[in-house]
Amino acid sequence: MEKVSVNQEALKIVREILNNPSLFNVYVEKLGSGATIIDAGVEAKGGYLTGLKVTEICLGGLGKASLFEKNFGGLTLPTVHVLTDYPAIALLASQLAGWNIKTENFSAVGSGPARALSLKPKKLFKKLGYQDEADVAILVLETEKKPDEQVVELIKEKCDVKPENIYFVLVSNKSITGLTQIAGRIVETGLYRLDFLGLDPLTVLHGTGSAPVMPTHPDPTKSMSRGNDSLSYGGETQYILNYSDEDKLRDIMEKAPSSTSKDYGKLFYEAYKAAGFDFYKLDVSLFAPASITVFNKANGKVYRAGKINPEAIKKSISFL
Amino acid sequence: MEKVSVNQEALKIVREILNNPSLFNVYVEKLGSGATIIDAGVEAKGGYLTGLKVTEICLGGLGKASLFEKNFGGLTLPTVHVLTDYPAIALLASQLAGWNIKTENFSAVGSGPARALSLKPKKLFKKLGYQDEADVAILVLETEKKPDEQVVELIKEKCDVKPENIYFVLVSNKSITGLTQIAGRIVETGLYRLDFLGLDPLTVLHGTGSAPVMPTHPDPTKSMSRGNDSLSYGGETQYILNYSDEDKLRDIMEKAPSSTSKDYGKLFYEAYKAAGFDFYKLDVSLFAPASITVFNKANGKVYRAGKINPEAIKKSISFL
Amino acid sequence: MEKVSVNQEALKIVREILNNPSLFNVYVEKLGSGATIIDAGVEAKGGYLTGLKVTEICLGGLGKASLFEKNFGGLTLPTVHVLTDYPAIALLASQLAGWNIKTENFSAVGSGPARALSLKPKKLFKKLGYQDEADVAILVLETEKKPDEQVVELIKEKCDVKPENIYFVLVSNKSITGLTQIAGRIVETGLYRLDFLGLDPLTVLHGTGSAPVMPTHPDPTKSMSRGNDSLSYGGETQYILNYSDEDKLRDIMEKAPSSTSKDYGKLFYEAYKAAGFDFYKLDVSLFAPASITVFNKANGKVYRAGKINPEAIKKSISFL
Repeated sequence: MEKVSVNQEALKIVREILNNPSLFNVYVEKLGSGATIIDAGVEAKGGYLTGLKVTEICLGGLGKASLFEKNFGGLTLPTVHVLTDYPAIALLASQLAGWNIKTENFSAVGSGPARALSLKPKKLFKKLGYQDEADVAILVLETEKKPDEQVVELIKEKCDVKPENIYFVLVSNKSITGLTQIAGRIVETGLYRLDFLGLDPLTVLHGTGSAPVMPTHPDPTKSMSRGNDSLSYGGETQYILNYSDEDKLRDIMEKAPSSTSKDYGKLFYEAYKAAGFDFYKLDVSLFAPASITVFNKANGKVYRAGKINPEAIKKSISFL
Repeated sequence: MEKVSVNQEALKIVREILNNPSLFNVYVEKLGSGATIIDAGVEAKGGYLTGLKVTEICLGGLGKASLFEKNFGGLTLPTVHVLTDYPAIALLASQLAGWNIKTENFSAVGSGPARALSLKPKKLFKKLGYQDEADVAILVLETEKKPDEQVVELIKEKCDVKPENIYFVLVSNKSITGLTQIAGRIVETGLYRLDFLGLDPLTVLHGTGSAPVMPTHPDPTKSMSRGNDSLSYGGETQYILNYSDEDKLRDIMEKAPSSTSKDYGKLFYEAYKAAGFDFYKLDVSLFAPASITVFNKANGKVYRAGKINPEAIKKSISFL
Repeated sequence: MEKVSVNQEALKIVREILNNPSLFNVYVEKLGSGATIIDAGVEAKGGYLTGLKVTEICLGGLGKASLFEKNFGGLTLPTVHVLTDYPAIALLASQLAGWNIKTENFSAVGSGPARALSLKPKKLFKKLGYQDEADVAILVLETEKKPDEQVVELIKEKCDVKPENIYFVLVSNKSITGLTQIAGRIVETGLYRLDFLGLDPLTVLHGTGSAPVMPTHPDPTKSMSRGNDSLSYGGETQYILNYSDEDKLRDIMEKAPSSTSKDYGKLFYEAYKAAGFDFYKLDVSLFAPASITVFNKANGKVYRAGKINPEAIKKSISFL
């Protein structure tokens, strides 16, 4: 079953976009080397539809993202719903923003299926026991700048694919594509947190969840901060897992939701500012869904922790 | 980017229907001239699925409509959710019911992509700066009667297309197709209202919203009235825009929702009856969503006005 | 209009699965006779996506199933939303689990489009006046065991199709596929109940509804019981019908929801245990949606009965 290829599955969605760039409000460009750049919301306008497709590309095609709405204490927000039946592969081996791309002139965090070719970070892939063998590499970059041929060279080498089979999907946190695909990371955020706390991600069989699409802010830091608030204060997740150690699971769940962070209650922007805008000084516990529910297939039990905080969502939108 | 064709995009959805008329509960007929009539809910039964497709045709293929549900004070109703990343074009240049089709034997209000060929109404299209150049014309008609060859002649002339490239999609307000596609006009209703109040629709970048699908009534006036209530009392909309004049925006928003109408609180049918069933005597402010939220991309601020009125929705269903 | 083929429509969805078994977490096997077995959640893992597709197969392709979420007294659960514009055919002539498949070595309840070829049960099909004439048979089986060639022989004979045109879709109540497709039966459950109470199903024109996907339990009886609780305590349905006898309709509606059962309030498992785990000793009134709303197209009136019971849903998940 693990013979599924996240790059091949995601390529189908990439092709949908390439067949109709106007519909998705993207710009498409081919570099001299043959690599394709899809600007899905940097200079291009992007959109909700684009953000949903980028989410599904990030999931390696192994999940669905749709838009509905949800009411946060009187404020109705467009809200992304995500489902995946391949949590470990779709969320951790693909969607996670786990590859720092750095060349002479370019620097960005990479996510999406290409990671399952480059195996970045290595330790995680060793744990997951998954490796894609596709001859195509699709990389999603949160960036304000286009990658150049040096980046193509890097991907070509790390992923062992030809330049003409490399696709870059660019998103900015200042576009609706960007904030839609951040909300679309809610199920990944929860699984990453559970993994961080010691839960073997391979025991997780199915994942679902939702988070609101926050409105963009012209200040990129505030825009990104709203995206983080959508997860920590507006995100709900549910997982089905098969777990034998009940005590450990209870212990992990107690520490899992964002409410366990010492910074809980602060907007992300406030916490980030207090940390001198240094990511590495932030309490990692805040990078978690507001609400996590785990259903243990092994014994039929449910474990719940945290709940959404509509006031914080409203504050993030009206205060920033 | 504005090179997108609403008629070509909508044609894809029309073809889906033509490929499987049974599934969508429609009747298809070809006139002698070659024009195609799709009865999507007049003599044909139609349905929710049909209504969602008609909504997407009305949007010129530049948006998505899906069905979920929403609770209105204890009454759960199937509810249409709409999103578009092309608000000005999809909603105003296409979905708006802005073309009065009148021939010797036929009279109906036309909406949908064909309007972007005939440029009706002219003033609006001048403001939008959009014109489709497709060689196919798709027109949605709210009617109880089929168009004849004189109507084909009119469309042929006004849209400059061959008869065999003309598609009429007919809906009645007495069918579920009809009430689904009325609910599907919620985001258009809000943008039209904002435009009416002086907001430049080209500043609006993305739109989302929802409205319940009201049950049909055998009396066509009451059925149509319920449709209007679904928007004025049950409709919620959100827009992302890029707007520089904060005072003007605040002023517009204060006047935007249906609650600003002197007829607010009355069912549409009651107001309509009091106006002697004369549309032109109605207070236009009632033709607005119950709730409008606007996110200004330019400064990151949010403006909210109005809220849904579940009691009015329930009254519209139980009283009429 | 009734010329629609539930087997042909469902075949399109079956082919989607066969084209990508990995994506849907299914195992595909061809028997010697040429019949195809799709294990959609017995030994195969299955999933939410699989369960939605199985639901649409059960509906004979004449309806849509999607996943969103719903909050039950503080507990958010992934929830299936279903719509159909062919209620009598999709729900009763196809989705209903109405065919007891029994051979020497195999026994299971069959549902899905093949029933519209075998016309099981006969009395119901006589009432519905529908018969499929496809040369392909698709049968969904709730089972823990694979059907063998004797079962193929039986289907071949009863459905009058060649073995190579027979498709079995297997689901277990212990998999998420299983519990998703049980939730996906909510609109069928309501129509079956209304039919049982004497309402002519042919008067029902459109149906919608939702029910939560309960987490699986390792004990198959408890897992199945949770599935039933999702319908009786968490299921909401809405129907549009055309009905002339108002008194009869009011009378039927009073008896329709699960709350009219003498066992209402008990979890399904408790009631089942009290009945000595004998299905035939259970009060059939419990097999009904928690909430049923009927809109009468004939006079524009609404009839509501019952409401969802979030406490029972939470109890079913935490207690079992």
